[in-house]
Amino acid sequence: MNADALKELLENVKNGSLPVGKALERLKDLPYADMGYAMVDHHRALRRGHPETIFSQGKTVDQVVGIARRLLEKDANIMATRADQTVYEALKTIGGRVEYHPAARIVVMNRQPITPTRTNILVMCAGTADIPVAEEAAVTAEVMGNRVVRLTDVGVAGIHRLLANREKIRTASVLVVVAGMDGALPSVAAGLTDKPVIAVPTSIGYGASFGGLAALLTMLNSCANGVTVVNIDNGYGAGYAASMINRIASE
Amino acid sequence: MNADALKELLENVKNGSLPVGKALERLKDLPYADMGYAMVDHHRALRRGHPETIFSQGKTVDQVVGIARRLLEKDANIMATRADQTVYEALKTIGGRVEYHPAARIVVMNRQPITPTRTNILVMCAGTADIPVAEEAAVTAEVMGNRVVRLTDVGVAGIHRLLANREKIRTASVLVVVAGMDGALPSVAAGLTDKPVIAVPTSIGYGASFGGLAALLTMLNSCANGVTVVNIDNGYGAGYAASMINRIASE
Amino acid sequence: MNADALKELLENVKNGSLPVGKALERLKDLPYADMGYAMVDHHRALRRGHPETIFSQGKTVDQVVGIARRLLEKDANIMATRADQTVYEALKTIGGRVEYHPAARIVVMNRQPITPTRTNILVMCAGTADIPVAEEAAVTAEVMGNRVVRLTDVGVAGIHRLLANREKIRTASVLVVVAGMDGALPSVAAGLTDKPVIAVPTSIGYGASFGGLAALLTMLNSCANGVTVVNIDNGYGAGYAASMINRIASE
Amino acid sequence: MNADALKELLENVKNGSLPVGKALERLKDLPYADMGYAMVDHHRALRRGHPETIFSQGKTVDQVVGIARRLLEKDANIMATRADQTVYEALKTIGGRVEYHPAARIVVMNRQPITPTRTNILVMCAGTADIPVAEEAAVTAEVMGNRVVRLTDVGVAGIHRLLANREKIRTASVLVVVAGMDGALPSVAAGLTDKPVIAVPTSIGYGASFGGLAALLTMLNSCANGVTVVNIDNGYGAGYAASMINRIASE
Amino acid sequence: MNADALKELLENVKNGSLPVGKALERLKDLPYADMGYAMVDHHRALRRGHPETIFSQGKTVDQVVGIARRLLEKDANIMATRADQTVYEALKTIGGRVEYHPAARIVVMNRQPITPTRTNILVMCAGTADIPVAEEAAVTAEVMGNRVVRLTDVGVAGIHRLLANREKIRTASVLVVVAGMDGALPSVAAGLTDKPVIAVPTSIGYGASFGGLAALLTMLNSCANGVTVVNIDNGYGAGYAASMINRIASE
Amino acid sequence: MNADALKELLENVKNGSLPVGKALERLKDLPYADMGYAMVDHHRALRRGHPETIFSQGKTVDQVVGIARRLLEKDANIMATRADQTVYEALKTIGGRVEYHPAARIVVMNRQPITPTRTNILVMCAGTADIPVAEEAAVTAEVMGNRVVRLTDVGVAGIHRLLANREKIRTASVLVVVAGMDGALPSVAAGLTDKPVIAVPTSIGYGASFGGLAALLTMLNSCANGVTVVNIDNGYGAGYAASMINRIASE
Amino acid sequence: MNADALKELLENVKNGSLPVGKALERLKDLPYADMGYAMVDHHRALRRGHPETIFSQGKTVDQVVGIARRLLEKDANIMATRADQTVYEALKTIGGRVEYHPAARIVVMNRQPITPTRTNILVMCAGTADIPVAEEAAVTAEVMGNRVVRLTDVGVAGIHRLLANREKIRTASVLVVVAGMDGALPSVAAGLTDKPVIAVPTSIGYGASFGGLAALLTMLNSCANGVTVVNIDNGYGAGYAASMINRIASE
Amino acid sequence: MNADALKELLENVKNGSLPVGKALERLKDLPYADMGYAMVDHHRALRRGHPETIFSQGKTVDQVVGIARRLLEKDANIMATRADQTVYEALKTIGGRVEYHPAARIVVMNRQPITPTRTNILVMCAGTADIPVAEEAAVTAEVMGNRVVRLTDVGVAGIHRLLANREKIRTASVLVVVAGMDGALPSVAAGLTDKPVIAVPTSIGYGASFGGLAALLTMLNSCANGVTVVNIDNGYGAGYAASMINRIASE
Repeated sequence: MNADALKELLENVKNGSLPVGKALERLKDLPYADMGYAMVDHHRALRRGHPETIFSQGKTVDQVVGIARRLLEKDANIMATRADQTVYEALKTIGGRVEYHPAARIVVMNRQPITPTRTNILVMCAGTADIPVAEEAAVTAEVMGNRVVRLTDVGVAGIHRLLANREKIRTASVLVVVAGMDGALPSVAAGLTDKPVIAVPTSIGYGASFGGLAALLTMLNSCANGVTVVNIDNGYGAGYAASMINRIASE
Repeated sequence: MNADALKELLENVKNGSLPVGKALERLKDLPYADMGYAMVDHHRALRRGHPETIFSQGKTVDQVVGIARRLLEKDANIMATRADQTVYEALKTIGGRVEYHPAARIVVMNRQPITPTRTNILVMCAGTADIPVAEEAAVTAEVMGNRVVRLTDVGVAGIHRLLANREKIRTASVLVVVAGMDGALPSVAAGLTDKPVIAVPTSIGYGASFGGLAALLTMLNSCANGVTVVNIDNGYGAGYAASMINRIASE
Repeated sequence: MNADALKELLENVKNGSLPVGKALERLKDLPYADMGYAMVDHHRALRRGHPETIFSQGKTVDQVVGIARRLLEKDANIMATRADQTVYEALKTIGGRVEYHPAARIVVMNRQPITPTRTNILVMCAGTADIPVAEEAAVTAEVMGNRVVRLTDVGVAGIHRLLANREKIRTASVLVVVAGMDGALPSVAAGLTDKPVIAVPTSIGYGASFGGLAALLTMLNSCANGVTVVNIDNGYGAGYAASMINRIASE
Repeated sequence: MNADALKELLENVKNGSLPVGKALERLKDLPYADMGYAMVDHHRALRRGHPETIFSQGKTVDQVVGIARRLLEKDANIMATRADQTVYEALKTIGGRVEYHPAARIVVMNRQPITPTRTNILVMCAGTADIPVAEEAAVTAEVMGNRVVRLTDVGVAGIHRLLANREKIRTASVLVVVAGMDGALPSVAAGLTDKPVIAVPTSIGYGASFGGLAALLTMLNSCANGVTVVNIDNGYGAGYAASMINRIASE
Repeated sequence: MNADALKELLENVKNGSLPVGKALERLKDLPYADMGYAMVDHHRALRRGHPETIFSQGKTVDQVVGIARRLLEKDANIMATRADQTVYEALKTIGGRVEYHPAARIVVMNRQPITPTRTNILVMCAGTADIPVAEEAAVTAEVMGNRVVRLTDVGVAGIHRLLANREKIRTASVLVVVAGMDGALPSVAAGLTDKPVIAVPTSIGYGASFGGLAALLTMLNSCANGVTVVNIDNGYGAGYAASMINRIASE
Repeated sequence: MNADALKELLENVKNGSLPVGKALERLKDLPYADMGYAMVDHHRALRRGHPETIFSQGKTVDQVVGIARRLLEKDANIMATRADQTVYEALKTIGGRVEYHPAARIVVMNRQPITPTRTNILVMCAGTADIPVAEEAAVTAEVMGNRVVRLTDVGVAGIHRLLANREKIRTASVLVVVAGMDGALPSVAAGLTDKPVIAVPTSIGYGASFGGLAALLTMLNSCANGVTVVNIDNGYGAGYAASMINRIASE
Repeated sequence: MNADALKELLENVKNGSLPVGKALERLKDLPYADMGYAMVDHHRALRRGHPETIFSQGKTVDQVVGIARRLLEKDANIMATRADQTVYEALKTIGGRVEYHPAARIVVMNRQPITPTRTNILVMCAGTADIPVAEEAAVTAEVMGNRVVRLTDVGVAGIHRLLANREKIRTASVLVVVAGMDGALPSVAAGLTDKPVIAVPTSIGYGASFGGLAALLTMLNSCANGVTVVNIDNGYGAGYAASMINRIASE
Repeated sequence: MNADALKELLENVKNGSLPVGKALERLKDLPYADMGYAMVDHHRALRRGHPETIFSQGKTVDQVVGIARRLLEKDANIMATRADQTVYEALKTIGGRVEYHPAARIVVMNRQPITPTRTNILVMCAGTADIPVAEEAAVTAEVMGNRVVRLTDVGVAGIHRLLANREKIRTASVLVVVAGMDGALPSVAAGLTDKPVIAVPTSIGYGASFGGLAALLTMLNSCANGVTVVNIDNGYGAGYAASMINRIASE
């Protein structure tokens, strides 16, 4: 029952065409009733202030295109993550402005103009192989209107390289720190700032890295203050949460 | 080498009593040299804007008291977490203002006056047994000057109780969501707000909860945007990170 | 907003004392608003047709008593599980009819008269040490009005003992099958009936039983049709689900 | 020894052609003796009231066809699960009525007319990627004569979409709830009904979902009453168990 | 239906007092019917050639005594494993011959005279702390009539000590090899014999031994021929299986 | 130092050409010295009474052929396990008698005549998909001269099929019991015999079978006496150990 | 700020062109400031005394070539590990001296003359399939100027083969011991020497080897003195650490 | 057969009283025969150059005293690790020089004079709670004659404290780095030296530290060169291995 229907109901009560008892009956289930939202939740963008995201992995190209098509009808700002070249080519065919960020594996469609933040998110990663996850975080944040600074190849085994970038660390309002293998970077980075650090373990590694489990556990056990963690390889989630915080900082 | 020693060195170079070559030699290790910080890092409070914290668990009462004594000499604002009644009694004997929060298991000493935030942190938990962890988060945040709103017993199996508190959810600038067992609460809560959610799994449960592992994995796999996770039972860490974000929001 | 308040609102709309616009405003948040349920959900008993349950484990005696007191005020039918003798003694002091089932570790208070089912639930277990969990299931089901048949010590290593009880198996409308160690009993039992089997792994065992994990995995991997599984040692959950099914069968 | 042979034995005892001692000897092993069932258990369909199922995964096409051929000779109602297009094509060549449900990956052969249930099973899933498992459950139940209602894309992070379908939830006699990632849906769904909920974790997810382990643990630890769980991706098992319950409800 | 009842039935058929049809009816369920065995399976001793065993761990002293009492009525040869001094004292009070083996934690009651084997079982262990498990295996085998040779403190890090006992290894018909920590002993021992080796991991160790898991995995992955494995700390199971093999060798 | 060299040394001592002191010196390291065995241990066949086995998995065809060639030079009886068609084709080219058992994935070369055992090994498995592992066990045992009886498709969910084969179970001197999924078969089978049971978990299954871990744990936790376990899918190891026992029984 | 800039600063202080206050200001961040190292750390070779290593796995050929090109500009001694034939071919095209060690999967470029050690590293492995990891260790050590002795196929199930090589064991200054499956070799080897043993678990095995986890745990739990462990399959790390020790021994 | 017996045998061969054939027969088993070592291996001290160690954990005080007594008879240098005050008091009663190191939980008996090393071992740890493990390493190394430098409370979240001690790091010939929680310290420390680093994970932590597993995995996955790892809490093993390396460096 949407607002119009509700208004009509109340007016019918007022003008006597609908008895109170019947109105009550119809309102009984209202707490859990249909709130006028369709299954594809194109209104969430407004409610959460962010674009609609299609997680492409595990979906067929047809499914991704189908979902995108429906979202476009609602003028939603769309982001398809974990998208390879094939997905990009397919999305180009359905019209609208389409950009592709191959390193981040993200397709952006129908991007709305957005006021950029004055403050920065710093996205750093420990090794070359962690770059795709770091880029997923960085591009996600950029699509959501954030200024993003990048820092790569600053593993803890060469601590001077990290220290040499203290300025970047100090001027960010929130940090996304991506690392595989031993996952030690967020602990060190958080010790150099008083801003929140969102740690992203990656599945990079071999043997006892167990697909990123080692890095995940390291980060959850970090002794540094201000570190919170997202799922293994979840650059998108980290970029999204960082954007929420940076938006606050920027306003 | 602290600032005074460095200044003296430069002045000796200037007045010719120290040749440039010798000065270079002494500065060679500067990048990694002693920066005037003692082992107990009482300066971190200023650098990070926060009190010194003693994690009492696994330490003897004597060790906790010893550390507290050294910190007091530096006029640090002190917080002892995972502190039982015995720790509290012992800390009372060393003087200063001492408060005890038994539900949160936190002793606060030497608390400095601090401007309270205008914005709120909402700390919610799913079950009665999760309250100690939630309180650890709430008191940590309060000690750090935040206004904290509490909400308890809002498990997802009785979703109406959560929905009945949407106003509290909507007016918080950041949420700490504590849950054991299935750990599903953060996913649902995050769907009702566009603010960051810090999820805290607890070790509450039995059988296949595996000491909080089930709740931890649930939270890491949350499909809701804006959820980040801390270690099992780490109310302190969640309160600390929430404070960082709320401070940004309040300023 | 409860039914009375809603009725009053509608009547005020009808009699013109509340303009439609203001009524709309107040109804706007209705989908998520307070639905008249207090935090302690004493209405759930009616909605779900079952008693209120207090999980005593991990709660202090005071907390259990406090919750019980509030529920008694609402005339709820109460069950405290994982309750030891101390909990029982404490609950006796707050009045009402109180029964204790020590093998099941369940206290029942204020039990309402309930029509017994015509059909049976069969609760069986593999070993003597599994009896507490089996009793938790059996007593839970009995409190909810079910006729329960018990069968103990029918491990698969002595298959003739199980086969000797085929009649009990065939006449049950649903089976609760409890086993620790290798957890193989539900697979065999389910092969002897065409009724649903609810399997309950127990933490009984040592070494590679890993606190019931072995039995849990065995049951999840059962090749027999109709087997579903609950958490390790979760006799209560099995008894509850079995009651739901047996109630259907009995009606 | 089948019934005819047993009857003949008794008649030989009666007419004196078989001494009691010899008859005893031949009956000695009867408790464990051959009961006239062949290795391929085509009689189970009658005993359990259900079709014969071939789990195709891990079998060669030739093996699947061979088993199907033997079952057809006995006029069994046959279902091949985890069957791809190749299996379907091969089964079509051996004659009889053959249907293929590609989303569910199920081939049905020789389907017998069956009285449909009056009551409903509700099969719901959290995400698009969970649909194959949900369809496996739904088609299994339909083949077994159940009326099935479907509900998709109702993840807990958008709780209003679930609440908008409360009517479907309330009118089902049993629910199959399928979810990957955080696996939180069954907890919420079970809170909205007083009917049994069969939870199916899926292997959908990445990182710390560990192939469905996260969702499995979430479901086993659900705080909601009436939830039981099957193996990861086991749509067939859930559909089968749901049919057992719905058949009871319908009769 | 026991042999006497069956004989009576056949004789009634023979003398015409029981019609064939009625006899058939009564025999119908015979394949699965009660075979005259009580729930406490005192006949298994004969069928399996071995004593009745009570696993005391996880049972109250009263339960152990109760089971022992029933078994004694049937003249069974009884063994209570994982039995401490208290269990021993309690069992002494119910009469009969009672021996206690404290290192093995085994109480033996009512031991029947048994022909000792001519061949040997060799029970060896790697460290002092493994002795209780080794003794459980050795005493179990001795109670079952086997000649047992013991060898202790022959860890693989001092390989000469093991090699110095090659004669004991070569003259055993079966070996029980007990080891905690790295669990490497069975691999080496099996390389020095062509007889079966039953490997018993123990929970001895710390850190990454994970309660015996490390030793268990080592043994399961042994490259040596003829090694089979039992549960962690399962000395009883190893002694039992070794006895089965040694009995064959001795006959 | 081989026997010939040792004899020569002693004779040189005897005839005085080697002083006792020098002989002592040369014998000093004998306990650990080269015992005349080449790296490829072709003498083990005699010492252990069995053929040389090449585990082909993880080796290139060239490596397998190279090892086989060296073994053939020593007249060893050779078995290549986990061998596919390509390995077989390659081994055929190096001459000698070569047989291939495709279901068991075993190539046998140079098989020596061997007296068959009088007693039987029973190899049984729960499902069709377990057959390759069961065949690996059966063929291994046959190559080592054992009479092997096979029994397939006797899962515990259809217990009558197992019971119908009690005669095969009772007449075996040792059983190899192969099962994936829930791995429950060995527990039931061991309850029907007083002979040793070697349990082989297989990697057959999905979801929470975790590549055979579920079946492995089930078997390790079996309550039945006489069950020992080998590695997941280790049909070869089970067949080898069974042969050791059956050889004892046959002699 | 590199040495030249620092010298210039000091000279400007000395000659008065830079006031002490301003110099202090510029030196303030020196502890953490840029120390003249580029992101690709070509100076580490000097600081650590070793070549630059590119871990090729998980990098594209283009990325490996790009990194190598930059390193070559600095005259670094380069090693690419986990490098297949394609990487080798690509690296050949960029000039310089290029060697390929296919068994070790290592490409060496621009190798500097280096004084060989007088002392030996012994690299041994248990099985043929472990050779690639052993070779990675051996070649790494050789590139770093060590004399390396190899020993293969000395599994603990044939202990005489290991003992026959005691001389090689006794004359090494450090041992690298590589093993998969049960991982028992390092324990035995360490018992035969008083030199450090670096144990390398490999992912060789199947079933309960869990990708090398079993061997890893065995090694961590070794009872032998002097054993330390590296990651699964980490031949490079073992060779590197062994080189550090052998360099000490050789000097 | 010890050296005297062997000499006698050879002389009997020489003087003709023992024929060569008989001598050969007696020498046949020599490779594996008793080598004159008793079961308690008091000769290992000489062979390995180190004291005999008694791991007290899991042993009764009587067992520890018994072993110590036997070792004292052989004049061995003795160390009892994981020894509490009770063990110390008991060992004092059996005479000889006895020292107790309570922080390290080590009792030293009968310590022989030993030439101290010229070079240092640096033992560092991340937190106060890690001190017992660090002390176990340090005292073990000191008992074995090493100069040990200690460094505590240098967690990676306060990186400046570690950097302030670079001199201690640079002057050590080998490092033992102890850390619990996230276990990140060895990675950072190894980046500041070109000497071997022995990493010791501790069981310090809570929640997802899983008793030290998180720290263990972090260390195994370290990206820094020269890091090897020992078991969780294994300070003794680290101190022992470090001593082996430092002894080499010192000679």
